[in-house]
Amino acid sequence: MESITSRKNPIIKRLRALAADAALRRDTGETVLDGLKLLGEAMASGAVITAVLAGEGTALPEGLEGRLAAEGAGLLRAPDALVSYASPVMNSPGPVFSVRLPSRPAPERPELAVVLEDVQDPGNVGTVIRTANAFGFDAVILTGGCADPTSPRAVRATMGAAFRQCVLELAPEELAGRLVAWKMPMFGAALGAGAMDIREMPRGRAAVAIGNEGHGLSEGLKAMCDGLIIIPMAPGSESLNAAMAAAVAMWELARDRIGVN
Amino acid sequence: MESITSRKNPIIKRLRALAADAALRRDTGETVLDGLKLLGEAMASGAVITAVLAGEGTALPEGLEGRLAAEGAGLLRAPDALVSYASPVMNSPGPVFSVRLPSRPAPERPELAVVLEDVQDPGNVGTVIRTANAFGFDAVILTGGCADPTSPRAVRATMGAAFRQCVLELAPEELAGRLVAWKMPMFGAALGAGAMDIREMPRGRAAVAIGNEGHGLSEGLKAMCDGLIIIPMAPGSESLNAAMAAAVAMWELARDRIGVN
Repeated sequence: MESITSRKNPIIKRLRALAADAALRRDTGETVLDGLKLLGEAMASGAVITAVLAGEGTALPEGLEGRLAAEGAGLLRAPDALVSYASPVMNSPGPVFSVRLPSRPAPERPELAVVLEDVQDPGNVGTVIRTANAFGFDAVILTGGCADPTSPRAVRATMGAAFRQCVLELAPEELAGRLVAWKMPMFGAALGAGAMDIREMPRGRAAVAIGNEGHGLSEGLKAMCDGLIIIPMAPGSESLNAAMAAAVAMWELARDRIGVN
Repeated sequence: MESITSRKNPIIKRLRALAADAALRRDTGETVLDGLKLLGEAMASGAVITAVLAGEGTALPEGLEGRLAAEGAGLLRAPDALVSYASPVMNSPGPVFSVRLPSRPAPERPELAVVLEDVQDPGNVGTVIRTANAFGFDAVILTGGCADPTSPRAVRATMGAAFRQCVLELAPEELAGRLVAWKMPMFGAALGAGAMDIREMPRGRAAVAIGNEGHGLSEGLKAMCDGLIIIPMAPGSESLNAAMAAAVAMWELARDRIGVN
């Protein structure tokens, strides 16, 4: 096992570059994460781990060394301060590792999907991926200018669900094509007139769409919807956080299905 | 209107102290916030604004100057860099302002309440306050070691609901006393055996309790519950974010009531 001491070590530089550079993540299919919990999730999912940087005293999961050796990936030790320097999070517990996120294709005939349009906050994107996974959604579809689902912050917010969940990034016209191919209706959360109360939404195979934190769904995306839905609120209150609105919409769509045999 | 140029100005120092120091917020009942949206919410709620620091070129809401004058509060101008220095947020748009959060007492006989125990993340606490407000909850009760609901990050996550929502911080024994006085049952989200499916939870006046992000509810708080509830999930998925679990639990409890006359 190699031990490193310099910030100029190429592995350190690459870990930091993966955190900062979305284009590099896209080109390599890799991201960088921190902590034993996510490392364990990555291992359990069968994802390819490409490098691990751990503090001198950090105990590593059983089987990690053999697996890294088999994949030709490096396991490096460094002083805690250097691990922290390489980490995408503040006050890093380490280990820091780079990993190729598995690409999970959508099933041919998905039952449930959630669409996010222009959702900017990586935490919101990650939390929705986590919740979609918990509620058995076949696909999370990101369209418009959503936050990168492979960023360390987004993946961290998924708490490992990013390794298991089908996430697709589609241009609006690609999304429209998929919905036609899947014969799947889409309901969009919107405040406008003509929106139906979400409690009256038809239950069945469907996608729900949630828009940007500040502006909601675009006119273009609303026009693609088979109906608009509104989550009723108490008088005087204004709106829900995008991730919370998505949670409630997904729960409503899934609640008659989950765990019902 | 005074214009200031030094980081040592006592108003600047006080704004920064309010962001950093929970004890000062508690002693004064004030917090510090940033941005026109929250300033507008504060004004609309009738909260007492105690100081405003705006960039030289920032347009201020109508009526603000008169109101500040009536309350004897200062309106200061400063270069943008100094506003940013005084602000609790990165890349501050300003204005930065200090405000006394209104204390909203609980009604004598609340219908719906949500309890958070040891929820550590200020964003989670703030988001739950926002969602509780949207769903018409009479009280948000924080117990154990929750994040301070008056911190800039928590209030920001409420998007202004902090100005309108009853939020109580109670020790566990005080919470127990309130539930008895209110004759209100409490259902706690927990994964253990003996928990009922949330879809079978009795609907009616009730509190739902959500525990810490990592560990869930304590044994002590579970023992105070009239029943434990579980949000069913797809096989292989593990858990929901605490705020998402709270959103689903609150929605389930409120969904037969909101907007139904």
